[in-house]
Amino acid sequence: MKILEEKILSEGRALGEDILKVDSFINHQVDPVLMQQIGEEFAAHFKDKGVTKVATIESSGIPPALMTAISLNVPLIILKKQPSKVLNDNLYQTAVTSFTKGTTYELTLSRQFVSEEDHVLIIDDFLANGEAGTGAIRLFRKAHATVAGIGILIEKSFQPGREKLMEQGIEVYSLARIAKLEKGHIEFISED
Amino acid sequence: MKILEEKILSEGRALGEDILKVDSFINHQVDPVLMQQIGEEFAAHFKDKGVTKVATIESSGIPPALMTAISLNVPLIILKKQPSKVLNDNLYQTAVTSFTKGTTYELTLSRQFVSEEDHVLIIDDFLANGEAGTGAIRLFRKAHATVAGIGILIEKSFQPGREKLMEQGIEVYSLARIAKLEKGHIEFISED
Repeated sequence: MKILEEKILSEGRALGEDILKVDSFINHQVDPVLMQQIGEEFAAHFKDKGVTKVATIESSGIPPALMTAISLNVPLIILKKQPSKVLNDNLYQTAVTSFTKGTTYELTLSRQFVSEEDHVLIIDDFLANGEAGTGAIRLFRKAHATVAGIGILIEKSFQPGREKLMEQGIEVYSLARIAKLEKGHIEFISED
Repeated sequence: MKILEEKILSEGRALGEDILKVDSFINHQVDPVLMQQIGEEFAAHFKDKGVTKVATIESSGIPPALMTAISLNVPLIILKKQPSKVLNDNLYQTAVTSFTKGTTYELTLSRQFVSEEDHVLIIDDFLANGEAGTGAIRLFRKAHATVAGIGILIEKSFQPGREKLMEQGIEVYSLARIAKLEKGHIEFISED
């Protein structure tokens, strides 16, 4: 998505080979017009897939996921990060370990908001190692729901997340795919 | 706001005198159409106040705050909850203790996203004791920004949050004001 790539080039900051800061328009300050455009783009791409719900993981994925849900006219589900497992028959939970942050949390979903009739589009801001996405898929499979695909704003294509998700038979649609980061330098995968 | 009150009556669950669960349309599953209507309502109410940015605290306030930012055509700032104080000259931080949850966190804002020119509208889902709202105001005052007002989806009017905020000279605009909760019973303050 041209407009997102341009925004990343003008406002994103590559702090090293792994870290891209986009907190002026995605993570901390949010550009609402860009989020609308992103939501429309995801909705256009997945419009014939029979999506019944959009889901995301709190909290940076919420703005683009909400705009996608609005464009597709379906509810949004915000998967919660709990610090530890809760014994509760009304919840689905699965442990997710973030390599990037070195933390583990329980991804949590109330049973009442998902059923085997649901076909869920998962939206997230970043795809790196794919732990969060894999955890979300595991959670929806526990509920016997199906996954329509994963929409990502920024994919670090030099990390294994995309492959890991595709190996599970999931379509990954990333709006900006980063081939390489260096301090002060950002390189995209050419779409041609 | 009639439509929000009706939704609270039909889908909200009063679990006792203090707890109202609205996780089918605000906190866990999100109703995007309702969020659009809420954003338009806040924007209409504050449209002549010279709002330069909308702010909220992660994560339940993000959907209504984003829709308000879209309607007002200004950026959104998501204030972060950090577990502990970070020594960093680029951040404003202030400790917030949640009576409801019995936890303390450092509300965090990067200096680069706020200036003394900013007039900020704060949006949040619930107002109870007013700790989060007071913390957000403190943070923007540290930055010498001004606060245009606070927009709340659901105010527990039997708790002291509204008074605490108004004592600081802040306008509080709540879309639904709850006079009383009992297990299975929800009573609004009549607007007449």
